[in-house]
Amino acid sequence: MHYTPILRNASRTSLTPSAALLERVKRPAYLARLARPEDLVPLFKAELMTIGWSGFTGVGYPKTLPTAIADDIESRNLQADPSTKKKFNLFVGASVGPEVEDRWAALDMIARRYPHQVGKEVAKGINAGRIEFADKHLSMFPQDLTYGYYNLHKRHGERSKPLDWAIVEATAINSEGHIVPGASVGATPEILQSAAKIIIEVNTRIPNLEGLHDINQSFLPPHRQPYLITHPSDRIGSTAIPVDPDRVVAIIETHKPDNTGSNAPENDESRAIARHLINFLEREVGEGRLPKSLLPLQSGIGNVANSIIGGLAEGPFDNVQVWTEVLQDTFLRFFDSGKLDFATATSIKFSPDGFDHFYKNWTNYKDRLLLRSQQVANSPEIIRRMGIIAMNTPLEVDIYGHANSTNALGSRMLNGLGGSADFLRNAKISIMHTPSTRPSKNDPTGISCIVPFASHVDQTEHDLDVVVTEQGLADVRGLSPRERAKVIIEKCAHPDYKDLLREYYDCALHECMKRGAGHEPHMLRNAFKFHTNFLEHGHMKVKSWD
Amino acid sequence: MHYTPILRNASRTSLTPSAALLERVKRPAYLARLARPEDLVPLFKAELMTIGWSGFTGVGYPKTLPTAIADDIESRNLQADPSTKKKFNLFVGASVGPEVEDRWAALDMIARRYPHQVGKEVAKGINAGRIEFADKHLSMFPQDLTYGYYNLHKRHGERSKPLDWAIVEATAINSEGHIVPGASVGATPEILQSAAKIIIEVNTRIPNLEGLHDINQSFLPPHRQPYLITHPSDRIGSTAIPVDPDRVVAIIETHKPDNTGSNAPENDESRAIARHLINFLEREVGEGRLPKSLLPLQSGIGNVANSIIGGLAEGPFDNVQVWTEVLQDTFLRFFDSGKLDFATATSIKFSPDGFDHFYKNWTNYKDRLLLRSQQVANSPEIIRRMGIIAMNTPLEVDIYGHANSTNALGSRMLNGLGGSADFLRNAKISIMHTPSTRPSKNDPTGISCIVPFASHVDQTEHDLDVVVTEQGLADVRGLSPRERAKVIIEKCAHPDYKDLLREYYDCALHECMKRGAGHEPHMLRNAFKFHTNFLEHGHMKVKSWD
Repeated sequence: MHYTPILRNASRTSLTPSAALLERVKRPAYLARLARPEDLVPLFKAELMTIGWSGFTGVGYPKTLPTAIADDIESRNLQADPSTKKKFNLFVGASVGPEVEDRWAALDMIARRYPHQVGKEVAKGINAGRIEFADKHLSMFPQDLTYGYYNLHKRHGERSKPLDWAIVEATAINSEGHIVPGASVGATPEILQSAAKIIIEVNTRIPNLEGLHDINQSFLPPHRQPYLITHPSDRIGSTAIPVDPDRVVAIIETHKPDNTGSNAPENDESRAIARHLINFLEREVGEGRLPKSLLPLQSGIGNVANSIIGGLAEGPFDNVQVWTEVLQDTFLRFFDSGKLDFATATSIKFSPDGFDHFYKNWTNYKDRLLLRSQQVANSPEIIRRMGIIAMNTPLEVDIYGHANSTNALGSRMLNGLGGSADFLRNAKISIMHTPSTRPSKNDPTGISCIVPFASHVDQTEHDLDVVVTEQGLADVRGLSPRERAKVIIEKCAHPDYKDLLREYYDCALHECMKRGAGHEPHMLRNAFKFHTNFLEHGHMKVKSWD
Repeated sequence: MHYTPILRNASRTSLTPSAALLERVKRPAYLARLARPEDLVPLFKAELMTIGWSGFTGVGYPKTLPTAIADDIESRNLQADPSTKKKFNLFVGASVGPEVEDRWAALDMIARRYPHQVGKEVAKGINAGRIEFADKHLSMFPQDLTYGYYNLHKRHGERSKPLDWAIVEATAINSEGHIVPGASVGATPEILQSAAKIIIEVNTRIPNLEGLHDINQSFLPPHRQPYLITHPSDRIGSTAIPVDPDRVVAIIETHKPDNTGSNAPENDESRAIARHLINFLEREVGEGRLPKSLLPLQSGIGNVANSIIGGLAEGPFDNVQVWTEVLQDTFLRFFDSGKLDFATATSIKFSPDGFDHFYKNWTNYKDRLLLRSQQVANSPEIIRRMGIIAMNTPLEVDIYGHANSTNALGSRMLNGLGGSADFLRNAKISIMHTPSTRPSKNDPTGISCIVPFASHVDQTEHDLDVVVTEQGLADVRGLSPRERAKVIIEKCAHPDYKDLLREYYDCALHECMKRGAGHEPHMLRNAFKFHTNFLEHGHMKVKSWD
């Protein structure tokens, strides 16, 4: 299989590589396949194609060719006519920049999108039924792709790879033709493995990041081996992603930066949550249940995560290690404080200023940082072995410790599960942090994040150790459901909802005891009354439980 | 710390060991601590003690001392008077024989019972609020015990181990004083590690099972190492469980067998489910997604599991491997068929006849069988690495693929989560099998096992690949929630409920689409209407969705 002819049909002129590109691409055969994005657009025909992109949390994704495809569709108004309309199945490790993903969604170019996304237009398409979406544990998505679970109904065999195309970003290509990724690894190794044809966008604006990544080979059962990692800094692979050079159809040069925004700003609430958490960790060290330098930390995205990491940068722990999914700007502060020894993740999602600082001070960071594939970064095996301390934000937590990470009011998808369950299931200490309420349109505390019954369950009571809001911290380790309910209501619920939750629990207990069913007391007819009240009245403050 | 004096106070006569006991106990110092059960009873005082037992799924548990303690309490009528009443916190890897556990519950001797149980009286106590119970992933329970999560409020230090006592069964003791367990390993290694004082029941009726077990040492983070297991027959440990001999207070001899019943009988329904499943596995092999000899199998307990394993014994696959939690009688048939190469588990729960057959033909089985601790048998690391095919029975599955494994009508605890989520989360193919309906008191199909919204969620939509009932098999791999709902309803629901479920889905879709929230359509006000209808009318056949 050699796809150069395809390219020659598409692009009849031979291009001269820039000096920057020559510096980055050490495989001469690829330079012969240099193309202009607009010449590659016709390869993406009207039939339903399945495409994989590099990228994770909005960094390291292909920027130029997806834009050229969208430009072409928009300028020719192809979507208006069913006979010319183009829709694609789009598989990416997690989310990518809005100028490509959200634009594709706005143009109704996405038929199917797995396993995670961020963007108003994508969410709108999913919730309107135009986009089929399924979220999946981010550690599992790449393996399900290589298992063939996303092309079950395609003919089996070499000619039928799970993906028709992979479009991936590189910051360099080595002499073997292997790919040095940008600021994320994500599912790129498995996407490349699973694609019939590959196009590489070499980004010459971003520095050559060779050495930042640890790329291991991913095997299928029964041929899998242990991940020989016992420390965040352990390397088990090489610095570039292997590809079959014969499947590389074209390379293009791109100059576009990762289109990140600024990080979510801290506020009083997020700082209060962070304080509770850091106090808790100090007590755990004091009791001898954690070493003085803690255990490797995982921290989610958002303002609470920023406050926690910011707090740790000024905090009482030295020689801290981080094993996480994504690094945000506050990690730079944490590094610069001297308190963070080593961090590993699958993606770096800095703000534009953060990236500037990072690239300028590259020598300070390069030996203390490693990016891995999401299959490894989120691996249950490694998370459990290391005894990670995991911290994530759900939409809502119920009084027994089940959490909803994905669907507002049980049905409206926000972004997807992400890696929350990879970490919360397997961590040594599984922490959920959330404000106790969120504002609704008509009430500044209209939404309680502590509810009687989670309207969607992504994390179960069996996976949660600690719940924390600005109100306080509930340590539910070792507690039965009845004990948990009391602690979560007393420590975490907002005063506006505390009595309502106590009443729900008391009534449910009373009713369930009467019929000998009081292990986890519920009034099923009222279990979602917070939510139905919100749908009717715009807030969760129910009048009564009758 | 040397506890012999305690024993000498309790038991003033020096006992002569039987010839059988001398044959089994190779550590002379232990023989000097030989005691009669009745002499040890006074050690279990009225204050709230925390006790760990060996045992898993009703085998390998201590039989004599727990009975003697119960006899004493019953004969002296201690429970009638609050000043003499005894209650214990009881921690066991999983369930144990009814003559001890259920009897203790009937006598109201159990204050707290983690993390799994079987027995009418135990369940009654839990659901009446007399017993605090929390189920936990069986792979996690032992580590949470050693982390100190069950004694958070005790003083830290050597004198305050998580457990006051461990009472464990052995079939032999080697010259180092290490324990050769009976027919299960379960959490016994960590229970021994966590106990201040230890009593060993040496069972001389069961054969010396030395060589059947693979016992590895369990470390705490940050000192954990990879489990170097890539094949069910791989050994990573020794044949006996290490103990600190100084903590062994006494040994007693016991002659009681494991009090197992017969296995659940197969029926037409279970055989139909097994047929669907075996056909599915054949197709997977045909499509090249599974090797010809499959991947290691995990199979739960119950009649469907029996039909599946029975079907495999006559089935199309050779050289099959098993990596599971518990082996039932049908595995003997599977071994004898020559189609099963090797099986490993944490427990053997044969019927009395099954055990007779097993012990008589020991030489046929001993090189094809290995028992491990539940931390290893249920390890996410190994389950994911090997690509296990996992098959378990829930109480109910909802139309989007969430499953309830534990709480009837959301509140009444049956047995607990067990290892279902360890396997379903991490398996290569995660299968839930259930009859499509169960009878209620007034209706032979009064309970639908396919429901709009699971009344308790233990397994999420992100963890399920296949749902199968006697009606058919739904392969939901790679499907979005909207696609999943249709397939599950059409393939799996009972004809008595199919229209009701279709209507629920259609109405929910219509309502959610109207407000742009149609990713996983629900009518929250009606989500539990099957269940509330059952509470009111004794069956789930709701009249309408209005």
